[in-house]
Amino acid sequence: MTTKASVGVLGLGTMGANLALNLADQGGQTVALFNRTTIKAQELADANPAFAKSLVPTDSLERFVEALATPRIIILMVQAGAAVDEQIAALKPLLDKGDIVIDAGNADFNDTRRRAAQLKDSPIRFVGMGVSGGELGARHGPSIMAGGDADVYAIIGPILERIAAKYQGAPCVAHMGPDGAGHFVKTIHNGIEYADMEMIAEVYGIMRDGLGLKAADAAKVFTRWNAGDLASYLIEISGVTLAEIDPDTGKPMVDVIVDEAGQKGTGRWAVIEAQKLAVSATTLEAAVSARIISAHRAERARTGAIYDLGATEKLTGVDLDALEKALETAKIIAYAQGFVIMQEASKTFGWNLPLGKIAEIWRAGCIIRSRFLDAITRAFDASETPENLLQVPEFVKRVKAGQGALRRVVAQAVLAGIPVPALSAALAYFDDLRRRRGTANLIQAQRDLFGAHTFRRLDRDGVFHHEWPPV
Amino acid sequence: MTTKASVGVLGLGTMGANLALNLADQGGQTVALFNRTTIKAQELADANPAFAKSLVPTDSLERFVEALATPRIIILMVQAGAAVDEQIAALKPLLDKGDIVIDAGNADFNDTRRRAAQLKDSPIRFVGMGVSGGELGARHGPSIMAGGDADVYAIIGPILERIAAKYQGAPCVAHMGPDGAGHFVKTIHNGIEYADMEMIAEVYGIMRDGLGLKAADAAKVFTRWNAGDLASYLIEISGVTLAEIDPDTGKPMVDVIVDEAGQKGTGRWAVIEAQKLAVSATTLEAAVSARIISAHRAERARTGAIYDLGATEKLTGVDLDALEKALETAKIIAYAQGFVIMQEASKTFGWNLPLGKIAEIWRAGCIIRSRFLDAITRAFDASETPENLLQVPEFVKRVKAGQGALRRVVAQAVLAGIPVPALSAALAYFDDLRRRRGTANLIQAQRDLFGAHTFRRLDRDGVFHHEWPPV
Repeated sequence: MTTKASVGVLGLGTMGANLALNLADQGGQTVALFNRTTIKAQELADANPAFAKSLVPTDSLERFVEALATPRIIILMVQAGAAVDEQIAALKPLLDKGDIVIDAGNADFNDTRRRAAQLKDSPIRFVGMGVSGGELGARHGPSIMAGGDADVYAIIGPILERIAAKYQGAPCVAHMGPDGAGHFVKTIHNGIEYADMEMIAEVYGIMRDGLGLKAADAAKVFTRWNAGDLASYLIEISGVTLAEIDPDTGKPMVDVIVDEAGQKGTGRWAVIEAQKLAVSATTLEAAVSARIISAHRAERARTGAIYDLGATEKLTGVDLDALEKALETAKIIAYAQGFVIMQEASKTFGWNLPLGKIAEIWRAGCIIRSRFLDAITRAFDASETPENLLQVPEFVKRVKAGQGALRRVVAQAVLAGIPVPALSAALAYFDDLRRRRGTANLIQAQRDLFGAHTFRRLDRDGVFHHEWPPV
Repeated sequence: MTTKASVGVLGLGTMGANLALNLADQGGQTVALFNRTTIKAQELADANPAFAKSLVPTDSLERFVEALATPRIIILMVQAGAAVDEQIAALKPLLDKGDIVIDAGNADFNDTRRRAAQLKDSPIRFVGMGVSGGELGARHGPSIMAGGDADVYAIIGPILERIAAKYQGAPCVAHMGPDGAGHFVKTIHNGIEYADMEMIAEVYGIMRDGLGLKAADAAKVFTRWNAGDLASYLIEISGVTLAEIDPDTGKPMVDVIVDEAGQKGTGRWAVIEAQKLAVSATTLEAAVSARIISAHRAERARTGAIYDLGATEKLTGVDLDALEKALETAKIIAYAQGFVIMQEASKTFGWNLPLGKIAEIWRAGCIIRSRFLDAITRAFDASETPENLLQVPEFVKRVKAGQGALRRVVAQAVLAGIPVPALSAALAYFDDLRRRRGTANLIQAQRDLFGAHTFRRLDRDGVFHHEWPPV
């Protein structure tokens, strides 16, 4: 080996291996490879003879570091958590001033902030980077949310732009802000993804249990919707998965799959961070909760046997057009919640998150990719930053047109006993937010009665306590 | 001073001062007093000449410690957070082996666990203790949830029993389990309190905006309900606060109070811990979210102006009896969620929480006190611990009788545009939990398509991946 590699990938699991191939292929990079089980590096190179010249397997961390041109760019793709700290500790004595270490795993942004602070005075330039799009995205073009210092992004940005997904030619990668900003945005992306998927699942449930549609018929509906305002990857694959037939049984695939959803925790992280920031995340939590409950299948069977309310009545006043409008409206509300979480985090952490840009780089590569995001970009690129997407004229028009359908769908599902946790959470958030005179006056009266927590008055300034009758 | 004080209170803010008076009064203790602003100790003693013999003001930490009989029992009632660590650090060199330090503030149970671990090998026996009931509770009888080691509880228990609230003679205090168990239970108590208060506020909103009731009429309804199955402190004070007239304007107090709710964070903690434990907390989060949104009053005004849907239609099919049933059902569901969170924490942290006892000690002293809790005690004291209160015959009967009303109320409110975030979250949780065939099969199909996350099949064991058509 005479030429040094331009970038290194440490950790060659599914994501790391595919990212390495992407770097060699679309990226045009020479990629040094290393993995704790060292044979994997050679195996990856051997399995991809087309990139023989671009893949540089190494069998020790020292040789991996030596194989890299300086300033070194090392992408860590190891399991989130302790393994990241271990690898950073192992690399640290081997690296020189200005070398860049990028954690591209699914890190908790709090860990990324901690690592960034710990490495601040070290020779290492540390970057936390969210990569979305799964295995296929990693190989052919993910959506990339990079944190770290802006001058480091100036070095790594050009490489990332080559490997990122493209939307109408524009690379789906951007610098989100310092320290944990990239991983935070990825976390909220996943929270929104949970909500989006759950709302689709709820609408599927209404089709199946409320309207009596077979999987193949539901597939057609989603495929048709994918040509309209709901057009998105998740709607597209809803059509694809619902249409798929199990080769073994001849039944629709979805009808042989167990209704227990897995989750890896990022949805829960999104809810936790929203709580810490004192921002509502009810649609995201509804989705997380629905997955949790789904996983308790035996308990559901026991509870279902106790509360068997008989056959679900057919829904009245709900047709497929109403369902489409309801889903679109609830989706807008869920995204509005997600962006408020990011706006609040941006303020709290001083990140100055590029909200319009975030929607832009989510248009391809990631799971929630859709045209719909264009409207969010337009909203945040407008002269005045909206405090909530629900106030943006383009969304106002759509929500006004769709909120009636959302009400009818939720009301009918509720009456029929079909669970709509995320759809109803979205509607409740909307109704709460547009309520000029709420009911927290009663809550404040109670809090003042039992805890002397005081209240404000409508008719004069100041903070007041009332001597309530003894209870 | 010849006799040593039997207990010390460090931190004489509202809660600390009242707890000290309670210890002197009902507790029959001689209470050493200390406060960072030292004059407060003397002031408290001077202001309460009736307890001149029982209150021992001190003006330095050293003299405070010296004033106490050994093993010393010191109750810290300082602001949660760093102040607790500071006081422990200051006390540590002054104390002897076996001395007991009780943090009775509103600590995050994670901090309590950390402190318990840090003090494990020190001479200090550390106890984290949740105290509920606010100022009046602290003075006349709070509900007390004590953590720490069982042998320490054996020492402090008799004193706590004297100062705790009594329900039909039984003191509302118990040992919850080691380290953070007491503060954790207190956190969940507060989460449930948020949900309970929000559901009442939502029902009040329906009365006011959907049924056109004046505050005085709504007060009568709550007062009547307080004689029925809903009987509880919160229903009682709903009646009291709604009936109260503002002496300045002659209007109902609730009609002059601003509809912005405050919160101190324990509701959010409850939601965060539920996420960490992977347990649903949707009714709790709905309540937290409602308070958050309420506090954004100017934003609500702007959003409300945009989405003015005209006058709220009168609700059809909803009368006060339906509202009562709906509230009772939703309350059962919210408490069921709260107890599942504690059950899961108990397993995760190895606490063996006394769930029946917890319901028992909440029957007096604390904010959610009610007769209703008796049924929860019966449920957990039964031979078989229920996995969810919704499976317990006594609650099954009530939920079966009330779920139809809850459906009608939620559906009608949703159609009328009246926000019911917590009521609808409760119903969604119930419907999700009793759904034998859910819709997570679609979510699993999608996850397998985009991330090869695999799925299980209904017709055979194992874990499967399907080769989905390319998208």
